[in-house]
Amino acid sequence: MKIAKMLGQRFKETPAECKIQSHIFMIRGGYMKRVGEGIYSLLPPALRITKKIENIIREEMDRIGGQEVLLPVAMPATLWKESGRFEAVGSELLRFKDRGGIDMVLGMTHEEAAVHLARHTAESYMNYPFMIYQIQTKFRDEPRSRGGLIRVREFTMKDAYSFHLTQEDLEEYYDKCHKAYERIFARVGVPEVISVKSDSGMMGGRVAHEFMLITDIGEDKLVVCDSCDYRSNMEVAECIVENAETEVKDLESVYTPHSKTIEDLCEYLSIDPKLTCKAVMYLKKKSYEPVVVFVRGDMEVNEIKVQNYLKEEIIPDDGSTETGIVYGFTGPVGLDIKGTILIDNSLKGMNNMVCGANKENYHYINVNLERDMKKPFEYHDFSKAYQGSICPCCGKKTINICRGIEVGNIFQLGKKYTETMEMQYIDKDGVLQNPIMGCYGIGVGRLSASVCEARHDENGPIWPMSIAPWQVHICAIRPDNEEVAKISNALYEELQNKKVEVIFDDRKVSAGVMFADADLLGVPVRVIVSPKTISRGAVEISFRDKSYKADISIENAAEEIQKIVAEQLAKFDI
Amino acid sequence: MKIAKMLGQRFKETPAECKIQSHIFMIRGGYMKRVGEGIYSLLPPALRITKKIENIIREEMDRIGGQEVLLPVAMPATLWKESGRFEAVGSELLRFKDRGGIDMVLGMTHEEAAVHLARHTAESYMNYPFMIYQIQTKFRDEPRSRGGLIRVREFTMKDAYSFHLTQEDLEEYYDKCHKAYERIFARVGVPEVISVKSDSGMMGGRVAHEFMLITDIGEDKLVVCDSCDYRSNMEVAECIVENAETEVKDLESVYTPHSKTIEDLCEYLSIDPKLTCKAVMYLKKKSYEPVVVFVRGDMEVNEIKVQNYLKEEIIPDDGSTETGIVYGFTGPVGLDIKGTILIDNSLKGMNNMVCGANKENYHYINVNLERDMKKPFEYHDFSKAYQGSICPCCGKKTINICRGIEVGNIFQLGKKYTETMEMQYIDKDGVLQNPIMGCYGIGVGRLSASVCEARHDENGPIWPMSIAPWQVHICAIRPDNEEVAKISNALYEELQNKKVEVIFDDRKVSAGVMFADADLLGVPVRVIVSPKTISRGAVEISFRDKSYKADISIENAAEEIQKIVAEQLAKFDI
Repeated sequence: MKIAKMLGQRFKETPAECKIQSHIFMIRGGYMKRVGEGIYSLLPPALRITKKIENIIREEMDRIGGQEVLLPVAMPATLWKESGRFEAVGSELLRFKDRGGIDMVLGMTHEEAAVHLARHTAESYMNYPFMIYQIQTKFRDEPRSRGGLIRVREFTMKDAYSFHLTQEDLEEYYDKCHKAYERIFARVGVPEVISVKSDSGMMGGRVAHEFMLITDIGEDKLVVCDSCDYRSNMEVAECIVENAETEVKDLESVYTPHSKTIEDLCEYLSIDPKLTCKAVMYLKKKSYEPVVVFVRGDMEVNEIKVQNYLKEEIIPDDGSTETGIVYGFTGPVGLDIKGTILIDNSLKGMNNMVCGANKENYHYINVNLERDMKKPFEYHDFSKAYQGSICPCCGKKTINICRGIEVGNIFQLGKKYTETMEMQYIDKDGVLQNPIMGCYGIGVGRLSASVCEARHDENGPIWPMSIAPWQVHICAIRPDNEEVAKISNALYEELQNKKVEVIFDDRKVSAGVMFADADLLGVPVRVIVSPKTISRGAVEISFRDKSYKADISIENAAEEIQKIVAEQLAKFDI
Repeated sequence: MKIAKMLGQRFKETPAECKIQSHIFMIRGGYMKRVGEGIYSLLPPALRITKKIENIIREEMDRIGGQEVLLPVAMPATLWKESGRFEAVGSELLRFKDRGGIDMVLGMTHEEAAVHLARHTAESYMNYPFMIYQIQTKFRDEPRSRGGLIRVREFTMKDAYSFHLTQEDLEEYYDKCHKAYERIFARVGVPEVISVKSDSGMMGGRVAHEFMLITDIGEDKLVVCDSCDYRSNMEVAECIVENAETEVKDLESVYTPHSKTIEDLCEYLSIDPKLTCKAVMYLKKKSYEPVVVFVRGDMEVNEIKVQNYLKEEIIPDDGSTETGIVYGFTGPVGLDIKGTILIDNSLKGMNNMVCGANKENYHYINVNLERDMKKPFEYHDFSKAYQGSICPCCGKKTINICRGIEVGNIFQLGKKYTETMEMQYIDKDGVLQNPIMGCYGIGVGRLSASVCEARHDENGPIWPMSIAPWQVHICAIRPDNEEVAKISNALYEELQNKKVEVIFDDRKVSAGVMFADADLLGVPVRVIVSPKTISRGAVEISFRDKSYKADISIENAAEEIQKIVAEQLAKFDI
């Protein structure tokens, strides 16, 4: 392709709305154009990257026996009513009525459609196991789209669904798919992607993993052990705390004016927040019944854990509901409310702690829960792991908190969908059974942006050869020079004949503009043809990642370049 | 792929809702499953065909310089408001509001999105011409979906948009695209597809062609000359009529009771309908003003022509609006209404015709329009061409009326979208200009169903090698026989190693079931391995179209089959 005729403009200025590097470069490089909130059109460079990523995913899905299918983007809501998600999922599920007044949805995930396709077509145990997948457009009406392709409303996704006779078979396949995902991320050039345990959220099921690219701009908080393999999403990471034993003292009520926050309280009493007990107030979303969680003063409540424990959604208590709580002075001792009181593990073994006395301007000191709580209670894990906390796997204080972009996820769904949607098979003994499901997703666009986040310098992306929009970028400097024109055109032709993917810049622009554009397109191998290189009898070849630069003779150029491309591609043949 | 593990069931019974062969076979063969009205999920055989068709289209679009892009499925309605189509297009355009209350549409065609992508990124005349295309899901809220993939609501389409500086350049490119389409249809195995002149409808613009597969089940009526190259959609086909001259007689009013229809009138007067003048009544859709069209009694009004002439929509006049018309006795002579009177070419040169006298139970005879009409009038072409009418191209009475399925279309759009949406470039003289557009569509799913319509026998589809879901179908009859199992498995392996696409049936089912399934899957080359063939030292090879059947020795089988597949594929290398 000649760059002069390629649709799209490249430019220097960073658009105000672009906050992260991949978004900046993919806008500045003419990869995509915003159409609406979280909706983009893709120009040729982005589409070429996308197609290559899709093909790598397709190969790896086929390798583990996947059968490619195509499920609808728009589907009747009846399917989602069958599974119960039409009601359960929030407004990110786009609902509409068709011209006949029929309730419809735009697919944001396709468990329902997959079960619809498979049921009645896999009725014997002999049809199992099998996996189907598709690469298709999805729509998710995100409240806040951000970061270019990182969080959009319309996106291309590979989603796969496997069906099994037994939990063991699902687990075996789940591991296979885990490995296929590792291969995919390695082949697209981000082998550093890690998998973390995660919450299954609205998908249902128990075991789930997310594949994360570690980066400060990630939306997810991750809990990673520096000394063992433990990796988890913050949402589900177990938090283990040890409290030093101290001599037991008598419970006392003290006057603590202006001490509604832990910070003020600690300032007033001159104590460490670790010695306090913090009350965090929520309401059950449906009943507005209060939920008070007590954690150690220096720690934070993990709301996902609270919701999973309660098996219902909670919202922060903004104080506008009548609950009987003395805000700012709430403590577990003597708290009498019509609601739920939860005690976090972090309070275990703490004697002599400070907590609210449920009375305006008063706190207790020297609290010992086991001694002072009049009601029976249990400790549970409701708090967030923190930097330096204890690893639940190796037991060392080596927990590291970092951020990541979720580029894929896998779920063991169990029978949630096959039971609600009545998908059945006849087992060996003639008995009707529901198959067990797994599902496996990768966002294609987000993955391309993530590779850009992981592989760029200050001037633009550095695309891995396996997914680069082109393999070679020829810059003909001074294309009005007859020799330059002849040699660069011949090289362009020759490389195309050798099936090398070339983008050719023979515009009459300065070398500076040419190189800036080449940096933005991030093609791995650059070839410069100029009067200067020709005077040396050579063209200059360099790698976008700056790891290599050399002259090669004009005669051997095409052949040499083809070899270099092949060598770089081979690195991804794993 | 082993058929035993492939998702999907094949069966004998024709489902009640399936009326045409492609629909019947694609349901009975496990190609697809209905999800909702006009919405299908595709199973592996259909998706494999689809992907092959897409790749052929992609190659041909790239060959004429197309740049692949991806435009959104869901887009803000603002784009469609800019072009004016948000109001102009009916309820087949699916409109909805997102969670923020923003008006959105699901793309049924992407002129707006294409202009949005191209404007401000192609601002110099030097960027022109260029063509962008995408292969993407579209949604069209059809009132009546039918015929399986022939008319659906959600479908995959290749849509292309070209941008030019001059009309000449557009026309040149339009011809190139026309040829690319011919190559596409030939390569997917339906070289008999013809192009016909067509109405540009809601797309705007003037010149347009549709690519049609001639078949009785087609929705479109076509006008094809048997003695020259003239081909047109009925909607725009010129109708030429010759009337024999007769001796001029005097106008007379006659009593014609119970003669409200041409049929009754001709019966009553014992005359040929060709001697009458028929009145066909419409109302303008917006104003409800009457429109009366007069045509020769044996002919039909072409409403598209009337609308194109009036430049507004018409609806049939059901008589419920007060128009002053004497229904059943309406004639051009003395008709006095507040509305539009149109006279068709077919009445030219007719003297002595019979027409309504605008008076209950009376007709005129011996009408001569030029003599008897008191108001000035013009003849125009408002009628439908008919079997045996005169070809507007060669002048012979060789017009043939047939039906076709529209598998593609191309339009010269002109500046309709670039003007309304303010897409501009700076020309050589520094003046702002709107580029001229063309657009080019192919429905992928409909094309696959059309190939099935064109290529099938009573037992199932006969897929051309270029798009067949697999190239070779191995039937291992008696797979419990050790020899059969060994030889068929080895052949399956060997062919896969040779990159031949094989589907392998080693189920323990009867030969009858196996062959019926193979017929439904329509794979071009079938290989039978059975105790009988083995006793002859051979496997049996046959073509799905029954043109070939032979034994080949077991040793050479893989190599021979590979050769046969390559030979068949080569036929599509045009």
